[in-house]
Amino acid sequence: MPDPALLDRLRRAVDAGFDAEVAFLGDIVRFPSLRGQEAPLQDWIARWMAGRGYQVDRFTLADVPMASHPKAAPMVDVDPAGSVQVVGTRRARNAGGRSLILQGHIDVVPEGPAEMWTHPPYAAVVRDGWLYGRGAHDMKAGVAAMIFAMEALKAAGLAPAGDVHVQTVTEEESTGNGALATLLRGYRADAALIPEPTGGTITRAHTGTLWFRLRVRGVPVHVMMAEAGTNAILSAMHLIQALQAHTVELNRAAEGDRWYGEVKSPIKFNPGIIRGGDWASSTPAWCEVDCRIGLLPTMEVAEVMAGVERCIEAARAGDNFLANNPPEVTWHGFQADGYVLEPGSEAERVLGAAHEQVFGAPMEERRSTAVNDTRYYGRYFATPALCYGPRGEGAHAFDERTNLEALRQTTLSIAAFIADWCGVEEVSAA
Amino acid sequence: MPDPALLDRLRRAVDAGFDAEVAFLGDIVRFPSLRGQEAPLQDWIARWMAGRGYQVDRFTLADVPMASHPKAAPMVDVDPAGSVQVVGTRRARNAGGRSLILQGHIDVVPEGPAEMWTHPPYAAVVRDGWLYGRGAHDMKAGVAAMIFAMEALKAAGLAPAGDVHVQTVTEEESTGNGALATLLRGYRADAALIPEPTGGTITRAHTGTLWFRLRVRGVPVHVMMAEAGTNAILSAMHLIQALQAHTVELNRAAEGDRWYGEVKSPIKFNPGIIRGGDWASSTPAWCEVDCRIGLLPTMEVAEVMAGVERCIEAARAGDNFLANNPPEVTWHGFQADGYVLEPGSEAERVLGAAHEQVFGAPMEERRSTAVNDTRYYGRYFATPALCYGPRGEGAHAFDERTNLEALRQTTLSIAAFIADWCGVEEVSAA
Repeated sequence: MPDPALLDRLRRAVDAGFDAEVAFLGDIVRFPSLRGQEAPLQDWIARWMAGRGYQVDRFTLADVPMASHPKAAPMVDVDPAGSVQVVGTRRARNAGGRSLILQGHIDVVPEGPAEMWTHPPYAAVVRDGWLYGRGAHDMKAGVAAMIFAMEALKAAGLAPAGDVHVQTVTEEESTGNGALATLLRGYRADAALIPEPTGGTITRAHTGTLWFRLRVRGVPVHVMMAEAGTNAILSAMHLIQALQAHTVELNRAAEGDRWYGEVKSPIKFNPGIIRGGDWASSTPAWCEVDCRIGLLPTMEVAEVMAGVERCIEAARAGDNFLANNPPEVTWHGFQADGYVLEPGSEAERVLGAAHEQVFGAPMEERRSTAVNDTRYYGRYFATPALCYGPRGEGAHAFDERTNLEALRQTTLSIAAFIADWCGVEEVSAA
Repeated sequence: MPDPALLDRLRRAVDAGFDAEVAFLGDIVRFPSLRGQEAPLQDWIARWMAGRGYQVDRFTLADVPMASHPKAAPMVDVDPAGSVQVVGTRRARNAGGRSLILQGHIDVVPEGPAEMWTHPPYAAVVRDGWLYGRGAHDMKAGVAAMIFAMEALKAAGLAPAGDVHVQTVTEEESTGNGALATLLRGYRADAALIPEPTGGTITRAHTGTLWFRLRVRGVPVHVMMAEAGTNAILSAMHLIQALQAHTVELNRAAEGDRWYGEVKSPIKFNPGIIRGGDWASSTPAWCEVDCRIGLLPTMEVAEVMAGVERCIEAARAGDNFLANNPPEVTWHGFQADGYVLEPGSEAERVLGAAHEQVFGAPMEERRSTAVNDTRYYGRYFATPALCYGPRGEGAHAFDERTNLEALRQTTLSIAAFIADWCGVEEVSAA
């Protein structure tokens, strides 16, 4: 726990820098950094960090040996060579303190019909203490918090006594390949903090996620002979219903789980995109559905994939058309394990102390039914990985927003964590 | 019935012109005259007819008082001013004989995934006595037949003794407004023949068709909180299932129908196009389904529309989301009545005699479970309207094709019908 005097120095620095932090958050929210369109924002951040003395390493997913790693996920609709990663490093005077990775993703999910937003989704409107916009909450507020926590140390005349890598990545919402790429590029540390918007809780466990695309092909005929043909939309509906039933079974099996036993239906199945057919009066020849299904940390990705494929195979028998025309299943994104942050790590203890000092209450834990990038650090690279960050609302929804007062406090708790985890050295204030 | 010598003259003329007819059919099949893209083909046909001495009238749906007619159907996705109609007229020396409208539509429905075609859909490949392509069967073969039936008369040194209007129209596959436009432009005759590909049968009755677009809007959330949001795709599926059940009821009520009592499930419901959602891991905020439903000639369009709306209203109660968010229903195309060609007309008798003379067997009748343009002539303008034409396969399907030998014979039977209906005058052969 930082001593009260140090915390006070950090608090003053966070407060003094907060207008700049909100302006920075607004700037990055105004970039529509949808999948495949993240590069302009990454370039902007790289230049921003270089301008503040970071050693910046900018590279793409095509620059690392992704294909050879078993936890790389397939990328179907985007070009890895266009997916830019940014690592800004502040090296300690000597490498004596504990090192740290601060990582945030800057990819955002599509905003949907713009007319359903109260404010334009990329306008970063501030009202009544909230900043609105797609990505404001998930997770550009966290990115602002980690970057301005580092700025606060510097403004307070302090430097971390351990190396700190500040990373902004892509693909968190679709594969996780951005986080993996930073590890394959070689970045390691004694702990990692990902300031996803957890509302000041520590993420004890997160579920895994799989993406798959169902593709049904039919024989269209004039609707006057509908019996002779088939309807690919109806066949796709049949498969969706089979997968809903399959998910009920998976959740039943999850009832005794150590971490998710008390969470109601922790495994979520979502048909997220559908498209099919060309003409109202032709029986549709094709239908595609992009789906997402979750898995518990105790489940194996390969086993859940096989379960989905068995479910679809079994459902064919109940559909005249599918019985003769096997639907295709393409695993076109996430193949993500779940992850449990085992209680008792030193990193979590240090973060919890910083949190309590700032917020005046213990850091509570949550179990997430969605995925985040901590699995790469914690599960494959033996690095304690903390998922903890600011408070907001509306992830993947309309009127997404982040609470600015929570952002200010979280920036301070992260600054205090950095100071206590890495240790600090006095430098002349900037 | 034409006398055998006249039929023989016509047969020789049809045979002599048949290579040109197949070439003409190939030419018009090679135009991808999809909805909104018919104008280049209509221009080509207008020039072709003008070059052969027709008086050509070319106009668009915006040139006639469409809006004021109760049987005009809404056009949502296309511009009426781009939808070109062509009427080529051959006036008789005096107006003594019976007049005739020959009408065919040149709009085609989308071809779907091209890789599911054996031959490219607009290549007009001829193989083993069939010509392949989108629209070859529905109904460009009929267009070729009616035009080359007229050519055969001319080549045989004959001219119809009544006025003949040869019309190529659009919108048959979506609204019927093309046919209506020719009537609103003022064209009338003692009978109309539409050579849809009936395989040499006369269409005793056709059903009506309605188009509607369902639009569901939802509140998307991150799938980890799927209970808090809603899934527009699943809500759309719920509505589709309700409409399937509604169709079963409609068909039950149709069991005693005079014309369709013996047809199994004559009323077809088809969800033809679906699109919804933006991201696999977001619960979809929107889903749209373009649908088609049929009605019997005894049913009123307004009554069936009201039934669909009641069905959707009732289905809302069974869906958490829809209960609070009414789906929108847009009537965006067909609002077509069915039609019965009452037996016993002189026009049908003359056509049947011509058919029997050419094919050596009586003209059989069919009941169609799809719509065609005859309703305009027969139901609203008191004109006997015959739907009779060549033989093929694959309307609205892959590998659509027309049988060339059937085309040759149908061209002759139509030529014989023209000669007998209008009467003929000897002219010097062209």
